[in-house]
Amino acid sequence: MRIAIDAMGGDHAPAIVVEGALAAAKEWADAELLLVGDSAKIEALLTERPSNLRVIHASEIIEAEDEPVRAVRRKKDASMVVAGRLVKEGEADAMISAGNTGALMTTGLLVVGRVPGIERPALAPMIPTLDGRGVLALDLGANMDSSPENLLQYAIMGSIYRSKVHGMDRPRVGLLNIGTEAMKGNELMKAAYPLLEQAPIHFVGNVESRDILHAEYDVIVCDGFAGNIMLKTLEGTALAIFSALKTELTRTTLTKLAAAVLKPGLSAFKEMFDYTEHGAAPLLGLTGLVLKSHGSSDAKAIKNAVRQARTALQNDLVGAIATEIKNGK
Amino acid sequence: MRIAIDAMGGDHAPAIVVEGALAAAKEWADAELLLVGDSAKIEALLTERPSNLRVIHASEIIEAEDEPVRAVRRKKDASMVVAGRLVKEGEADAMISAGNTGALMTTGLLVVGRVPGIERPALAPMIPTLDGRGVLALDLGANMDSSPENLLQYAIMGSIYRSKVHGMDRPRVGLLNIGTEAMKGNELMKAAYPLLEQAPIHFVGNVESRDILHAEYDVIVCDGFAGNIMLKTLEGTALAIFSALKTELTRTTLTKLAAAVLKPGLSAFKEMFDYTEHGAAPLLGLTGLVLKSHGSSDAKAIKNAVRQARTALQNDLVGAIATEIKNGK
Repeated sequence: MRIAIDAMGGDHAPAIVVEGALAAAKEWADAELLLVGDSAKIEALLTERPSNLRVIHASEIIEAEDEPVRAVRRKKDASMVVAGRLVKEGEADAMISAGNTGALMTTGLLVVGRVPGIERPALAPMIPTLDGRGVLALDLGANMDSSPENLLQYAIMGSIYRSKVHGMDRPRVGLLNIGTEAMKGNELMKAAYPLLEQAPIHFVGNVESRDILHAEYDVIVCDGFAGNIMLKTLEGTALAIFSALKTELTRTTLTKLAAAVLKPGLSAFKEMFDYTEHGAAPLLGLTGLVLKSHGSSDAKAIKNAVRQARTALQNDLVGAIATEIKNGK
Repeated sequence: MRIAIDAMGGDHAPAIVVEGALAAAKEWADAELLLVGDSAKIEALLTERPSNLRVIHASEIIEAEDEPVRAVRRKKDASMVVAGRLVKEGEADAMISAGNTGALMTTGLLVVGRVPGIERPALAPMIPTLDGRGVLALDLGANMDSSPENLLQYAIMGSIYRSKVHGMDRPRVGLLNIGTEAMKGNELMKAAYPLLEQAPIHFVGNVESRDILHAEYDVIVCDGFAGNIMLKTLEGTALAIFSALKTELTRTTLTKLAAAVLKPGLSAFKEMFDYTEHGAAPLLGLTGLVLKSHGSSDAKAIKNAVRQARTALQNDLVGAIATEIKNGK
């Protein structure tokens, strides 16, 4: 299997991307890694030369602040676009990037291309839960407006992902809603509900965002707008509470002492909310595997993304999605 | 001014509702309070008989689990419906209920009635912020689907509410979105943006739910579905973190000692997230004032709702909304 890695994407590129790719190449001899980007810079960072790691030159870079569609269209030799083209042309089976999320979604759509029958690919990150299992949430922003049929496809793809990549037997799929009763919600959710009921998934009905950290489901299906609101509220609330907590803990000498006692427990707890720990988010519904690593990824996160890609490829995630969508037509 | 109070609504009705009404009657001699409900039960709870408090008998009760529309239609002598009718017929200027939220919205729509020109009344609770100022959020669930024109009316009503009831000079109004740039979001938000730009309000543009606890705006406009997702994610995350924190704090004898040191500071901080502390939520766009108290309201919360109603009536909130909507036509 060949995995293309956008060496120029992310806050700490190319150094940590190269470091992560080197570690992955050494760990998994069965994976051939294609590091795509400025070859001079990459070569300078390569402290070793494992035989399963190749450098592919790309002269341009898509920046974090670039307008996604324009950047992908104009920067034809950008590392991200070249990596997408390698997947498109069968030179690579998967690609990983920690770069501009919007540009990566555009690369997926315009360069890699959709699975026949999939109307809208979906971005599917993991949301952490208190029991450590996490919930795969999709769509979280690839499409702002969704139809009930889009939600049905998200549900099927999310379920397959958790089976194939996380080895789950019958992943429980919930529909994000404002109450658990069947006829709750807006027109979109009311129309999606019966479609999900009849889908080849283990549908557990409507679920509420109030319980997401205690989720009793493995996949949560939502439109990109509401899903994004949910994720950002969750992140913002957790950050604000931890920051206010820190102020409380450092108020006096006595509270500082108390804080020292609590520190180990609190750190472990806070880490649970650290989004860099939760793996790369797949873009589902494309003809090749595309993984989005967090912009602030460190070398370990990049290596973990390679592990994820490897598992998905070993279990033919993309093929399973294509087959299921074809059967459903 | 006359304020009808649904004595039978809420988790602790009628006892704490009567207690709160008694306290309010004694504090504000200019307000005549009409306690609506089972007169025998209410009379038995009246430890005093202030001259500005009257009991109005209603033989039925809308329960928390009743289906809202059916309950309001069938239980014509329910305390909530009778209170609504008092407002409709000019026998009361405002009503307060801690009962079934859906039924109260239905009572507002079907019994009290809309201001001419208002298509959809909106439920507008306060969301707490770290600086204590809070944000008025609307709509938070009166309508699951909204049009751009609905959002425009929410923006105008929310702005007037904060002027009239909270004495704000130029309340800052934000539009809930997934990014702050002007053309972000789904079709609804993209269509609403230019309408809000031209409205007679201090529009500060798109705002993100990530920053809600640090809000630099006074009103947040959203559709009922996304708003509800935001509020429930916020509440659920805060509750889950506090509960996990409690587990950490009680893990060992040493952490329990540390917790004792931190307790006063943490309690004040936790209280900020206590939704019963943040007043009653107005239902805006009706021909009379309707306030929803939290289901778990205590006597103090009921008394505070009377204070809120009094301020809104003194400043002619309903008249101001009606005038602005008429002028905008």
